[in-house]
Amino acid sequence: MPTRPSKSLEVVPNPHPDRDYEVSMTVPEFTCLCPMTGQPDFAAIRIRYVPDQHLVELKSLKLYMWAYRDEVAFHEEVTNLILNDLVGATHPRWMEVVGDFHVRGGIKTEVRATYGKRPEI
Amino acid sequence: MPTRPSKSLEVVPNPHPDRDYEVSMTVPEFTCLCPMTGQPDFAAIRIRYVPDQHLVELKSLKLYMWAYRDEVAFHEEVTNLILNDLVGATHPRWMEVVGDFHVRGGIKTEVRATYGKRPEI
Amino acid sequence: MPTRPSKSLEVVPNPHPDRDYEVSMTVPEFTCLCPMTGQPDFAAIRIRYVPDQHLVELKSLKLYMWAYRDEVAFHEEVTNLILNDLVGATHPRWMEVVGDFHVRGGIKTEVRATYGKRPEI
Amino acid sequence: MPTRPSKSLEVVPNPHPDRDYEVSMTVPEFTCLCPMTGQPDFAAIRIRYVPDQHLVELKSLKLYMWAYRDEVAFHEEVTNLILNDLVGATHPRWMEVVGDFHVRGGIKTEVRATYGKRPEI
Amino acid sequence: MPTRPSKSLEVVPNPHPDRDYEVSMTVPEFTCLCPMTGQPDFAAIRIRYVPDQHLVELKSLKLYMWAYRDEVAFHEEVTNLILNDLVGATHPRWMEVVGDFHVRGGIKTEVRATYGKRPEI
Amino acid sequence: MPTRPSKSLEVVPNPHPDRDYEVSMTVPEFTCLCPMTGQPDFAAIRIRYVPDQHLVELKSLKLYMWAYRDEVAFHEEVTNLILNDLVGATHPRWMEVVGDFHVRGGIKTEVRATYGKRPEI
Amino acid sequence: MPTRPSKSLEVVPNPHPDRDYEVSMTVPEFTCLCPMTGQPDFAAIRIRYVPDQHLVELKSLKLYMWAYRDEVAFHEEVTNLILNDLVGATHPRWMEVVGDFHVRGGIKTEVRATYGKRPEI
Amino acid sequence: MPTRPSKSLEVVPNPHPDRDYEVSMTVPEFTCLCPMTGQPDFAAIRIRYVPDQHLVELKSLKLYMWAYRDEVAFHEEVTNLILNDLVGATHPRWMEVVGDFHVRGGIKTEVRATYGKRPEI
Amino acid sequence: MPTRPSKSLEVVPNPHPDRDYEVSMTVPEFTCLCPMTGQPDFAAIRIRYVPDQHLVELKSLKLYMWAYRDEVAFHEEVTNLILNDLVGATHPRWMEVVGDFHVRGGIKTEVRATYGKRPEI
Amino acid sequence: MPTRPSKSLEVVPNPHPDRDYEVSMTVPEFTCLCPMTGQPDFAAIRIRYVPDQHLVELKSLKLYMWAYRDEVAFHEEVTNLILNDLVGATHPRWMEVVGDFHVRGGIKTEVRATYGKRPEI
Repeated sequence: MPTRPSKSLEVVPNPHPDRDYEVSMTVPEFTCLCPMTGQPDFAAIRIRYVPDQHLVELKSLKLYMWAYRDEVAFHEEVTNLILNDLVGATHPRWMEVVGDFHVRGGIKTEVRATYGKRPEI
Repeated sequence: MPTRPSKSLEVVPNPHPDRDYEVSMTVPEFTCLCPMTGQPDFAAIRIRYVPDQHLVELKSLKLYMWAYRDEVAFHEEVTNLILNDLVGATHPRWMEVVGDFHVRGGIKTEVRATYGKRPEI
Repeated sequence: MPTRPSKSLEVVPNPHPDRDYEVSMTVPEFTCLCPMTGQPDFAAIRIRYVPDQHLVELKSLKLYMWAYRDEVAFHEEVTNLILNDLVGATHPRWMEVVGDFHVRGGIKTEVRATYGKRPEI
Repeated sequence: MPTRPSKSLEVVPNPHPDRDYEVSMTVPEFTCLCPMTGQPDFAAIRIRYVPDQHLVELKSLKLYMWAYRDEVAFHEEVTNLILNDLVGATHPRWMEVVGDFHVRGGIKTEVRATYGKRPEI
Repeated sequence: MPTRPSKSLEVVPNPHPDRDYEVSMTVPEFTCLCPMTGQPDFAAIRIRYVPDQHLVELKSLKLYMWAYRDEVAFHEEVTNLILNDLVGATHPRWMEVVGDFHVRGGIKTEVRATYGKRPEI
Repeated sequence: MPTRPSKSLEVVPNPHPDRDYEVSMTVPEFTCLCPMTGQPDFAAIRIRYVPDQHLVELKSLKLYMWAYRDEVAFHEEVTNLILNDLVGATHPRWMEVVGDFHVRGGIKTEVRATYGKRPEI
Repeated sequence: MPTRPSKSLEVVPNPHPDRDYEVSMTVPEFTCLCPMTGQPDFAAIRIRYVPDQHLVELKSLKLYMWAYRDEVAFHEEVTNLILNDLVGATHPRWMEVVGDFHVRGGIKTEVRATYGKRPEI
Repeated sequence: MPTRPSKSLEVVPNPHPDRDYEVSMTVPEFTCLCPMTGQPDFAAIRIRYVPDQHLVELKSLKLYMWAYRDEVAFHEEVTNLILNDLVGATHPRWMEVVGDFHVRGGIKTEVRATYGKRPEI
Repeated sequence: MPTRPSKSLEVVPNPHPDRDYEVSMTVPEFTCLCPMTGQPDFAAIRIRYVPDQHLVELKSLKLYMWAYRDEVAFHEEVTNLILNDLVGATHPRWMEVVGDFHVRGGIKTEVRATYGKRPEI
Repeated sequence: MPTRPSKSLEVVPNPHPDRDYEVSMTVPEFTCLCPMTGQPDFAAIRIRYVPDQHLVELKSLKLYMWAYRDEVAFHEEVTNLILNDLVGATHPRWMEVVGDFHVRGGIKTEVRATYGKRPEI
């Protein structure tokens, strides 16, 4: 088994910090482990944000998501944690993270958390 | 015939009570009995809420929905009852319950009820 | 040819009059006759309302829609008439009726009329 | 109530009788009456055929379908009757009629009947 | 709880036994109980057949499907049993039954069983 | 070549002028000529309006659209002209015209123009 | 009104005449005139063929389709005529032309004609 | 990190071995590791088979799929291995396994492998 | 290799500068080069604007987009640059540019930037 | 401008040469130049094949497709050339290449070429 990456997010400078604009990223390949059963959970993670001085770097975002592969986490918790980490790394003007999880026990769950007040754009 | 579960909902602590965020749950497998004909009705139940101190526990939600299998109820009534029970168990900041029922007599019915004022998120 | 039903709508008491909630009903099987050509017109009728003291009874709604089968009516007129009759029978807090008619002369027409001011729900 | 048309189908000469080719016609606006309840049934009728010496004339087909508006008929029967009438009028090389009926009692029914052996085209 | 119907299927005479034609019926409202967990399973049942002397009667089919509501059965078994019962009641020239079950344990299952050799139609 | 119709729009009285309601009409069959190349352009024209004292008459609308068949016009211009003509004929409380044109040079263009302030309905 | 093109189709040499392969072309922008009413008809024309020594040249195909703009033709006839002209110009190993016409009188019509025996590819 | 399951598949007796029928199972939650980069790959695995004396047991299938979570495998190889294991466990009359992998390097790959000759059903 | 066009945008006068109306243009054929890997990136570019005195000329827009074919640019940067150039050329009342990029590293990115305050239309 | 890759395809050994199985690859990011106008053409390329001793290596396939970026080629020609190159590199038992090109002059073109006789799988 290869070494898993650590959960470090890298940033690049925002080339247009003078303007409020929106970046949307969809990560359809997210998997972690269920705290109740230890079995794998699967989700798509959708991120939208209005950057301030920094953009999240694409490759480090991929590795960050990968790092959850052996983590144990509830749906509501992991969505909020991803938001916290992305906010800590990029200090955006506004950010939204949606965790869109697969059916478990015949029930489909989606969690949506936001940071800051969305600028009108 | 196995014993049917009672309609008790359980909760778990909200890991991020400091933040307004939204949880959406879709239960496509709901069935009860029609008060007019005694025959089965089928629906998808969709729940959205902004939790306060508690989250609804997934497995107890599944059993709660199962408990309607032999209950007799009108579309409008059962949707409001589910909202009442979920509000009573989780005391959310805001909640919406939608009952999306199958065609009966060539007419499709959907009932949407809410509790509280939705925070801007 | 069987006897056609008269256009009488029946109501049942609203089990939750203390709460603003929304009921949506879709009737995909509506047909009347064109005033210009005498030929059949077809439409789906979609109803949304916030009930006050009464709900429209499902079976009488089906018979009411059936009663238009031999009536002659323009698209704009029949949609407003259905709204008037439903408002007269149920006295809702808010109601919307949409008549979604099939293509005639290469043109597709949809008429949407409302009653009252929609509560925020 | 206007006078209903009789069920007469008219034909026009096939401009290319030397070639096997296929004509498909979809009539989404078909309604008749249910023999069990006397209430309206709705269907889309789909016709495919390889003409021989005659094509079915479009306007007479519309009037023919309209003529079922007050007829009482089972799903299986009316689909076969339409096939019989269309075969009697056009004597095609091959023909298929599909009656695609709306949900009744929670069950959706489609009937497909054919005449002749389909040429390879 | 109302009395459940017994699993008796009724038939009506085929009005066109001289012709091979196909009837398709979709029952999206099927539920039984899982033999492993006792919990409800949900499925859509799709039936296609070429009738011989009899058609399955629509209302008895609805009651037949309803009768499985408290039955315990594996996916593969119940699909074959429905085929057996429908063949026993209607003696068709050909029949297909598909059981299209909801996701369980992250896996979606569909079972398709047939009777007889399908006539070319 | 048959004689082309002139661009005259006719109106009928609004049967419910006391109520703000909305009429939507979709004309998927619009064609004119490109001012740059002289070649045909194709579009769907979508109209929504809140009538005041008059409704646009359906058949004259069809002929009006047909009259553009040999006209030369830019996308932006023709959409505004149609709006002007419809406003001139019906004096609506509010009106929107959308011209949804086919791909030209690998680019798809849609033009949306409105008249008046939309009533809240 | 600009000058309409004549119906001449041009060809280019097939760069791979040693191989049976298939070319599919969709022309969503076809319009001619109805012989019954003189009013415009609209269709999408779909062509599939296995070329022999020649391919149809794209620009001349566009002009050829444009040339029908003022022609009067029945659905069945025009589809066969297009097939004849394309066969005459390209002498393909196999060809299919489909005329997919818009709804007229509540009925949608599609005509499919082929030339030759399709090679197995 | 919890202990990963071993790749053992369990079977249950086929309740209808006298009949050729088809079982289809879709596993949308499959992940393994890329041999080139060590990074996670994601796929949906679709299985269809005609059972002989045994059915694959649903829960063991879920655990079997889970066991690939830390395995390193090419797309083409892993699809064939899953087919081999399923054939070895159930000895079906016919079986198909499809591995439907996510986009990598801008290219989407699907691998389909079968065992035996499919009975006509 | 043919000569690439320069990035010059041309404009035409707005025929209706007295009215706020909206033009939407979709360019599904955009490609540039990735600054990290030098490999091609692909996107659809969607533009919406409310013109003031000038409209963007369609052909020059096509050439402008083509001119990025050999340019090296990050997703966020190129979307903002296109907005800047279009604003510089047309001085619109309001404009939005969306860059909708293909999946890279399992992540799909969309960038949306706007200029000015959108008039209510 | 970075150096463009040459059109060399690499292969890897087929891990299951004893079995006929099918690999499908979709490349939605293909662009070349039009021989008539010198302007860019865009297409999706879809490949299906039954490998013999070799599989096409994914990364070299990506570079091969990239190499067409500055090539001038007709739709029919480039599809056949890609098939020839892939057959030359992998010597498959059967192969199909589809070039699915964007609309040009209002016409959409798709070219499908195959090599060998498809094994029954």
